Amino acid sequence: MSILAVGSVAFDCIATPSGRVDNVLGGSATYFALAASYFTDVRIVAVVGDDFTADYENVLKKRGVDTRGIEHATGKTFRWGGQYHDNLNEAKTDFTELNVFEQFRPRIPAEYQDSQFLFLGNINPTLQSEVCTALPGVKLTGGDTMNYWIKGSRQDLTLTLKQINVLLINDSEAKMLAGETNLPRAALKVLAMGPQALVIKHGEYGATIFFREGAFGIGRHPFRAPALPIQEVKDPTGAGDSFAGGFMGYIGSQGEVNREVLKRALFYGGVMGSFAVEQFGTERLQSLTREEIDARFQVFRELTHLE
Amino acid sequence: MSILAVGSVAFDCIATPSGRVDNVLGGSATYFALAASYFTDVRIVAVVGDDFTADYENVLKKRGVDTRGIEHATGKTFRWGGQYHDNLNEAKTDFTELNVFEQFRPRIPAEYQDSQFLFLGNINPTLQSEVCTALPGVKLTGGDTMNYWIKGSRQDLTLTLKQINVLLINDSEAKMLAGETNLPRAALKVLAMGPQALVIKHGEYGATIFFREGAFGIGRHPFRAPALPIQEVKDPTGAGDSFAGGFMGYIGSQGEVNREVLKRALFYGGVMGSFAVEQFGTERLQSLTREEIDARFQVFRELTHLE
Repeated sequence: MSILAVGSVAFDCIATPSGRVDNVLGGSATYFALAASYFTDVRIVAVVGDDFTADYENVLKKRGVDTRGIEHATGKTFRWGGQYHDNLNEAKTDFTELNVFEQFRPRIPAEYQDSQFLFLGNINPTLQSEVCTALPGVKLTGGDTMNYWIKGSRQDLTLTLKQINVLLINDSEAKMLAGETNLPRAALKVLAMGPQALVIKHGEYGATIFFREGAFGIGRHPFRAPALPIQEVKDPTGAGDSFAGGFMGYIGSQGEVNREVLKRALFYGGVMGSFAVEQFGTERLQSLTREEIDARFQVFRELTHLE
Repeated sequence: MSILAVGSVAFDCIATPSGRVDNVLGGSATYFALAASYFTDVRIVAVVGDDFTADYENVLKKRGVDTRGIEHATGKTFRWGGQYHDNLNEAKTDFTELNVFEQFRPRIPAEYQDSQFLFLGNINPTLQSEVCTALPGVKLTGGDTMNYWIKGSRQDLTLTLKQINVLLINDSEAKMLAGETNLPRAALKVLAMGPQALVIKHGEYGATIFFREGAFGIGRHPFRAPALPIQEVKDPTGAGDSFAGGFMGYIGSQGEVNREVLKRALFYGGVMGSFAVEQFGTERLQSLTREEIDARFQVFRELTHLE
């Protein structure tokens, strides 16, 4: 089945304790699409500038990603620069040049109208809402957001949350959104805002999925998937979007969406996030095989399952 | 089989967002012993003052804990006061009155010489070493330590670490001990200091056990157990010692110590930690049943296991 990803495509300049890279392909839609491409068909809606050459686009095309929805605007592509120090969970932003992304209005090509799954990368919640409205037929919508929108556009975000089935955010975003420091209580409050399920990403500690009562089947409890303890984290950029790509990609590859599928998807999210951070930028996500992915899924399973 | 626990017995004054209590029974040996008492025979070596009345001791005795190793010294019992704010993972200490604990020299009663398991609570590493030396016949020694000793008594601690089979510490302690911010790399360094296994406690995210190559059987990977997402954490005091009590208690209840036992023990550690925080002080640990414990073990399993 097909997943449509709407988000950013960017050039990143990244410095970490392991080294630095300049102007490498990045952006939420890019990481998401590459990660999801190992599971199912992926389409992108994003905007780039004149400097986005065929070489960059080919990175996506080689993975079979449908790039017809990438709008080529006059101007420069979104650029982000940041650095990570010892705490690899926290990026210090050096610069953000929105460029053509500033005027981004997602346009869904007619060929994408039959998309069965939708992922809304971390963009203005009003734009996220517009995309949802333009695609009323999707089976499941996943979405991301961030502190910037939670603080500055809460009202718009509230409307968007009613259109999102599965929200994927991290601990601090969940706590800020709910105005609540206890994580499971924060989760309950966020679920009351609209989503049927909430994935809270804990960085190196994995992720938990909380379900609204009765959503996606019956079950009393949330579910937790681990992250792999990784000795060499080269570059954490894109880990969250790669997680979302593995999560939504696996869901998109299944016939049905139920709790067991969502639990496995949480594992695949962790798997793709763990690959993403092994190399700078999207490098590792460009050259994986499904066998490597499933082998790591097994490692994640052994890491948490009793005999 | 019998576990001997050496550590502190104290009176705690605790304030959390859920309320406050004064002069309740606490201390590392107390939490450990109560938690472990649901699994196997437990004995305590500790020191208390004149103010430690029979009522306090009866809390332990009621759970079948052998208190003959509690030394009654002249003076006051160790007292600690602390408060927790929104971040329940961090205690702000109001006061520490060591009192009789300042001169504590663990004396192992003759009746305890046949102890098969030993747990060294967070006390001076030199005293921990002395206990190990006094009990050469134990099958497995678990131990705790803290930043205070890692910073101030590193050389003594280095010797102790060679006598401990399983070290149980938290993330920041592991990183400080290893001088390394990456957790799995820190774990490798700590294992090289002596212990065959290292349990790193992640608070609300659970715990990971790392094994030295070949220790306790064969296996490639560490193992992670979750913590239960708890909506009502009333008082986090003693969670780590209760974790250790569940962990060591389960090990002590088994005939053999192998990786599968240690993995299950990690789950039971999380289970006992999750009970401990539900009420102030040791209250919840006084009134559990083995059925409640095993029911929660099942919840932990469902929380992490795919079908």
